[in-house]
Amino acid sequence: MSERPRRKSWILIGILCVLLVAHVILRMALPSWQNYSRNEAETAVRKVLDEQVAAWNRGDLEGFMKGYWNSPNLRFYSKNGVTSGWEATIERYRKEYQSEGHEMGRLAFSDLEINPVAPDTAWARGHWQVVTTKETREGVFTLILRRNAEGWQIVHDHTSSSQPPAKETKKEE
Amino acid sequence: MSERPRRKSWILIGILCVLLVAHVILRMALPSWQNYSRNEAETAVRKVLDEQVAAWNRGDLEGFMKGYWNSPNLRFYSKNGVTSGWEATIERYRKEYQSEGHEMGRLAFSDLEINPVAPDTAWARGHWQVVTTKETREGVFTLILRRNAEGWQIVHDHTSSSQPPAKETKKEE
Repeated sequence: MSERPRRKSWILIGILCVLLVAHVILRMALPSWQNYSRNEAETAVRKVLDEQVAAWNRGDLEGFMKGYWNSPNLRFYSKNGVTSGWEATIERYRKEYQSEGHEMGRLAFSDLEINPVAPDTAWARGHWQVVTTKETREGVFTLILRRNAEGWQIVHDHTSSSQPPAKETKKEE
Repeated sequence: MSERPRRKSWILIGILCVLLVAHVILRMALPSWQNYSRNEAETAVRKVLDEQVAAWNRGDLEGFMKGYWNSPNLRFYSKNGVTSGWEATIERYRKEYQSEGHEMGRLAFSDLEINPVAPDTAWARGHWQVVTTKETREGVFTLILRRNAEGWQIVHDHTSSSQPPAKETKKEE
């Protein structure tokens, strides 16, 4: 009579063991975002920004714009307010850097900090500088990036330009 | 002789049941972020910003500053570059809005959009306006907020001021 309850209890233990293993696997999968995926996201975002700089410095504005979400919902914030959409954003760059009397010059980012916050979202901040034959323009930027089918792309860009003279407007630290 | 193994197996079942319950609770906690917590985060962030506006409008700069992370790691980005830390940030506000010839005026946010991205991180963007007896100052802002022991607080603020005349620098949309 004692055999049946024992068999039942072992079946129960078996089921619970399976659930326990499932639990452990799930728990292991979650912290992995904390480590591997965060580094992976940071590396991927850095690559997008590096490619933007490389494109800019070969005069390839279309290439530079590949870092931006090609959507009417892209937003570019500046002292001029809000620029809405990818088309308006490339137009803004064309006006500021490719129109008569302007040049793209040489772009560099510094103090770049990338903060992945979710598997599909990161934010970044840093300092930008464009050196042309006539002037140095510089300032700070804050970016929100999302991972979509195209990879990581900027969905929101807030960029400030320092006022001339450029030397007075350097980083305070 | 059969009593001891049975007792052992029931203890095992007991332990596994506790682990199973822990597992179920954890699994239930995770999807809830998708629904309840996102709304909760948005509401909480909105409350922080509403309280900032209310504090500003009663001339309470210290109250306004409660929305900011009280840390040397707080960053405030503007056309003047980077302001580092809570102390330097309140000092910046004092200089711009409480020094001789300045006044705090009346602050209002519009086009405010709050985006929770993780249980402890959100970003927000919008348009700000300060109306004083002499002038209207306005511009756009991008905020990164984190939830810490004090609740939701701004850890990074990127604020742009439109150039005068204010009317030309309104939102483009």
